[in-house]
Amino acid sequence: MKIAIDAFGGDHAPTEIIKGVVDAVNAEPGFTAVLFGAEETVRAELSRYAYPADRIEVVDAPEVIGNDESPTEGVRKKKNSSIVKAFHALNTDDAYGAFVSAGSTGAVLTGAVLLLKRIRGINRPALAPVLPTVNGGQVVLVDCGANADCKPLNLVQFARMGKAYANTLGISDPKIGLLSNGTEDKKGNELNKETFPLLKEDASLNFVGNIEGRDILGGAVDVVVTDGFSGNVALKSCEGTALTMFEVIKQNILGGGLRAKIGYLLLKPAFRRVKNVMDYNNKGGAVLLGLQKIVVKSHGSSKAKSITASVLQAYNLCRAGIVDAIAGAMVTASEE
Amino acid sequence: MKIAIDAFGGDHAPTEIIKGVVDAVNAEPGFTAVLFGAEETVRAELSRYAYPADRIEVVDAPEVIGNDESPTEGVRKKKNSSIVKAFHALNTDDAYGAFVSAGSTGAVLTGAVLLLKRIRGINRPALAPVLPTVNGGQVVLVDCGANADCKPLNLVQFARMGKAYANTLGISDPKIGLLSNGTEDKKGNELNKETFPLLKEDASLNFVGNIEGRDILGGAVDVVVTDGFSGNVALKSCEGTALTMFEVIKQNILGGGLRAKIGYLLLKPAFRRVKNVMDYNNKGGAVLLGLQKIVVKSHGSSKAKSITASVLQAYNLCRAGIVDAIAGAMVTASEE
Repeated sequence: MKIAIDAFGGDHAPTEIIKGVVDAVNAEPGFTAVLFGAEETVRAELSRYAYPADRIEVVDAPEVIGNDESPTEGVRKKKNSSIVKAFHALNTDDAYGAFVSAGSTGAVLTGAVLLLKRIRGINRPALAPVLPTVNGGQVVLVDCGANADCKPLNLVQFARMGKAYANTLGISDPKIGLLSNGTEDKKGNELNKETFPLLKEDASLNFVGNIEGRDILGGAVDVVVTDGFSGNVALKSCEGTALTMFEVIKQNILGGGLRAKIGYLLLKPAFRRVKNVMDYNNKGGAVLLGLQKIVVKSHGSSKAKSITASVLQAYNLCRAGIVDAIAGAMVTASEE
Repeated sequence: MKIAIDAFGGDHAPTEIIKGVVDAVNAEPGFTAVLFGAEETVRAELSRYAYPADRIEVVDAPEVIGNDESPTEGVRKKKNSSIVKAFHALNTDDAYGAFVSAGSTGAVLTGAVLLLKRIRGINRPALAPVLPTVNGGQVVLVDCGANADCKPLNLVQFARMGKAYANTLGISDPKIGLLSNGTEDKKGNELNKETFPLLKEDASLNFVGNIEGRDILGGAVDVVVTDGFSGNVALKSCEGTALTMFEVIKQNILGGGLRAKIGYLLLKPAFRRVKNVMDYNNKGGAVLLGLQKIVVKSHGSSKAKSITASVLQAYNLCRAGIVDAIAGAMVTASEE
């Protein structure tokens, strides 16, 4: 199995990307990494590390689609960008299972949707991060930003894809909640009110009803279904609050004199564990579900550790056969 | 000035509500509190406290609209409920400036929208909480749940109302951000894309552009404008994450042995300050803006301290003339 990696995507590219890929290759023997980027620079970086030489390939792709340019134009015009070349490789070479990038979200999503083949029955691919829950579990949020405007049918497909994803995480019959502005059955905007009965009637889903934003990390459901706009708002509100709390705790410790500083030193291991629990980016990226190949979008600020996690996540998703699982779930759906 | 209070709304009613009202009356001499609820019970509770006798009145309203019944039916059928009787008093007696309730959000919102007069030019009232920011400031979130489906015009009105609210908090020219799924100008769902140019063209607003969920508590803007569905998702995602973090910190301290426990004891004052900063419910309730009288919705779990804060908040908003300020902002809008 080959995994394509965008060597020039992200704030710390290419150094941290390449370091992360080398670590992934050395940690897991089951795949070949193919780095897409300016070949000379990539090879110079690679020369700093020890790894099995046949396990990392390089494809020259000197162009980069930046965060500040139109993703659609970038994908159309920059034929030699890492994203365009990698997606072409995924489409034409069956050996490729996945693509990992920490580059521009817009370019990765647009490129994937325009260039990669969709799974039959899926109208819209969706972006799904996995978040930590308070009880030590995990929850899949789908969609977190690929589709700002959705139809009820899209949300039902998101639920089925989210279920397939949760299955690969070892959750055999995931509880599925619809993100709403209240837990009562009749709560929601028009989209939610139309989606609710469709999810309820879907015999393949363990739909438990509406959930609120405060329930996302609460562990009561395994998959949260929502449109990409609300999902993005929810995800980033969670992120922002976690960052704010760390900052407010820091301010109060720094302003709390010697007593607080000693307290902080004693609690440092606990704080490190909390940061580790809350920082879902260290556990991989958001996965674009619904295409014939896996696309993992790492956070733009990803360092080597996150890239390693994302590459191993892509590998595990391919091994678990998530594309076939989603395709199977859609066949079941159309047969009902 | 009279302030009407729902004596039987909320998880800790009537005991904590009445205690909170007595504390507010004793703290601020400028208003009379009128408690709406089962008179005998209310008077029995009141007899436990010392306060100026002429500053608290009781209106018998024996019915309660519960969280589990249809708000519309409850408001229509329960003419003797505290909510219906209080709104009737607000509509007919000019002495009343505000209503405070910790009861069913649905019943309070539905009752207010159905029964209270709107400010001329406002199509939809909106619910606005004030949240703490990381730099010690405050941010108004409007709408957080009164309108699940909105039109661009509604959001422009929310921005004007949010500005008037921020003015009463001492922010003279509030920065206004539109909640979106990215910070770029072209980001957003259909609603946002149509709203963006309207906010930009509005000369009365200091519109700074799109913001993400992670910016809500970041302090870069003073007013966050959004539809009630996304606003509710954002608010509750922030709440849920704060609760989750406190819980994860607690678990890690309890599991961290003696060292962590001593650290915790030393950091206790700092944690208390953090909780105090993050718990916006202790600083009052969400305000329903756009009606001819102020409605403050306290959290259902409000104890006396939150009720006191909500009553004083209602008093301050009346004194600051927020209803006239919103009416003025709408006149300016229609004159442009």
